[in-house]
Amino acid sequence: MRRVIALLTDFGTRDGYVGAVKGVLLSRAPGVSIVDLAHDIPRGDVEAAGFALAQAVSELPVGSVCLSVVDPGVGTGRRALAAASHGLLHVAPDNGLLARILDGDAHARVHSIERLPWQREVSAVFEGRDFFAPAAAWLACGGPLRTLGPPVAVASLAPGASPPSRRRGEVGYGAVVHIDRFGNLITNLRVESAVPTGIVELAEEAIPTARTYADAAPGELVAVRGSSGWLEIACNRGSAAEVLGARRGSVVTWRPHPPAPE
Amino acid sequence: MRRVIALLTDFGTRDGYVGAVKGVLLSRAPGVSIVDLAHDIPRGDVEAAGFALAQAVSELPVGSVCLSVVDPGVGTGRRALAAASHGLLHVAPDNGLLARILDGDAHARVHSIERLPWQREVSAVFEGRDFFAPAAAWLACGGPLRTLGPPVAVASLAPGASPPSRRRGEVGYGAVVHIDRFGNLITNLRVESAVPTGIVELAEEAIPTARTYADAAPGELVAVRGSSGWLEIACNRGSAAEVLGARRGSVVTWRPHPPAPE
Amino acid sequence: MRRVIALLTDFGTRDGYVGAVKGVLLSRAPGVSIVDLAHDIPRGDVEAAGFALAQAVSELPVGSVCLSVVDPGVGTGRRALAAASHGLLHVAPDNGLLARILDGDAHARVHSIERLPWQREVSAVFEGRDFFAPAAAWLACGGPLRTLGPPVAVASLAPGASPPSRRRGEVGYGAVVHIDRFGNLITNLRVESAVPTGIVELAEEAIPTARTYADAAPGELVAVRGSSGWLEIACNRGSAAEVLGARRGSVVTWRPHPPAPE
Repeated sequence: MRRVIALLTDFGTRDGYVGAVKGVLLSRAPGVSIVDLAHDIPRGDVEAAGFALAQAVSELPVGSVCLSVVDPGVGTGRRALAAASHGLLHVAPDNGLLARILDGDAHARVHSIERLPWQREVSAVFEGRDFFAPAAAWLACGGPLRTLGPPVAVASLAPGASPPSRRRGEVGYGAVVHIDRFGNLITNLRVESAVPTGIVELAEEAIPTARTYADAAPGELVAVRGSSGWLEIACNRGSAAEVLGARRGSVVTWRPHPPAPE
Repeated sequence: MRRVIALLTDFGTRDGYVGAVKGVLLSRAPGVSIVDLAHDIPRGDVEAAGFALAQAVSELPVGSVCLSVVDPGVGTGRRALAAASHGLLHVAPDNGLLARILDGDAHARVHSIERLPWQREVSAVFEGRDFFAPAAAWLACGGPLRTLGPPVAVASLAPGASPPSRRRGEVGYGAVVHIDRFGNLITNLRVESAVPTGIVELAEEAIPTARTYADAAPGELVAVRGSSGWLEIACNRGSAAEVLGARRGSVVTWRPHPPAPE
Repeated sequence: MRRVIALLTDFGTRDGYVGAVKGVLLSRAPGVSIVDLAHDIPRGDVEAAGFALAQAVSELPVGSVCLSVVDPGVGTGRRALAAASHGLLHVAPDNGLLARILDGDAHARVHSIERLPWQREVSAVFEGRDFFAPAAAWLACGGPLRTLGPPVAVASLAPGASPPSRRRGEVGYGAVVHIDRFGNLITNLRVESAVPTGIVELAEEAIPTARTYADAAPGELVAVRGSSGWLEIACNRGSAAEVLGARRGSVVTWRPHPPAPE
């Protein structure tokens, strides 16, 4: 079977950057299967990248290599990481991008990439091509993590930016952590059942819970269990982000059992 | 030869949704070749998706599996379809997306997908990942349509939204059915010859016919035979949609032989 | 090893055009590995396409076929080209798109594509699908250049639009030749050392030189050696194009050794 290298970047699809990275992968790991995950991550938005990555890789075959480059600190002293977690291999800058992936994985192994198997000049403004891609190709060829550099403690990595939610009694207090292309607001409030119950509040708007988007009338708001298990606020056939004027960080309150009306 | 699964969605390329679907395909149909057709279909726009799909798949190798997910009714009772038509296999929601593909194919076979070969939890908001993708992977592995569910009559499927054109005498009366990235207006008026003749009218503007875009001066409008055989209104090096203020549904009249001037 | 066909177009990812081209490639060159380089080249922008292409293909494996279609002159008399240069094969219209690739390659071989190995009707508005893609598939199958048509002299090709820079004494006078997704301004001024020195001027703004973007404070401008060796003006965590109101063609001056202050 051909080895998979999955790519996630903020390089967009109007310049030659993605092509240059793919060229390195194809040259260094001949026969590899390159899979585009997402290239239109908002530029430099490490938090959005980390969220999309966690969502994108959940179903990849064991042994796939995930190369993620959203890297506003390119060329600076921040570390480069190679990690093994949940059966996948990851290559990314140490800027919090991998925080969601590694979070809670007691078996994760992370190495600092300090040497490459192939000598090449490294541009200070394009380490994705010159440093991360060769490392990913090496892993796809079966090169072991330790050949790239020493192990590092997960606790020493740059943290993710996403705040935890809190619970007071039955009420959950959380925040919007991601806004997707559809304008859906994904929160950090966990939904354990298939269908959330109760009432969700954002920006003084009370939003009913339901099973899926189309349970609301067109243009109406609804809160559902998102596809990764997080409470998600949507607008059927519209954009909840626009309707609510919501942003990442907007506060969300969830009362699973609203007080009975008097 | 490796089996092809071609993907068309409105998931965009800034979230993890496309990656999650690809992960399922790679895990369930190892070695499959994934081909991206289009991911920036306007969100929820089933009509645009159906048009793009018909155009995108016309040249795919026999036996390719096409997975199309533009699905504003996700999680509701609408059926899921697996179809064989014109040598290709299709998986899509029953919302009109396949209408152009199946239209006029007396040999099409369509089944309702009611069971999957692999057990998995199905998110009510992401059946693309949990239901359609496994079905497509199964077909790519050679699984027969009938193992997914019972056959359904083509006549029972949700219809496409696109109106037919009419002809009165020599004059054709039609509408814009698609506006592409270039601002070209694709109509539902069929052009049988390599070059249309006469005069096309939209929004009280008379547009000359020609062979190709650059037959008009830069900034000028022209009507040509589009690449799929439909009359198409374009603006050389510009956007006909902007110049004419046209929308999907805008009325188009075509007089192949304009009355001789007095 | 599977042969690579790399694709660069301005077709976008919301219509069926990219899919139709891929279908031809997969049908005509079964088993080929299709690699997306960039599909969001600004529409009809041959200069941007040529820049992105040169950047995208620099690392592709020897023998890869690059199919580039940004073609405002589709269907007109402009030639179609098949070229061998720097170990790669190229198929593109003769409109300057290949100028950067062929520039300075004394060993380049270029042929005019005048016949196809497979008969097919050619749409006057979609030669990418009907003419260029079959030619690229033929080359990927090992078909020789000469079977597509006669050799043509590089000097006879449509020139690229990009102006050369000039040097007067130590001072370089150049221009912005490309603006990337990040708003970085790539110039035609060559940087021989790893880090440029001195002061760069654009729009009466004096911009300090440095090694990488993050050497400037967030929101500040900086001039670096870009990843392809050209002087590049950036704004750390911002868009230099927006900050400076710069466009392609904007004049840039570089004084590697600014006069010592009095």
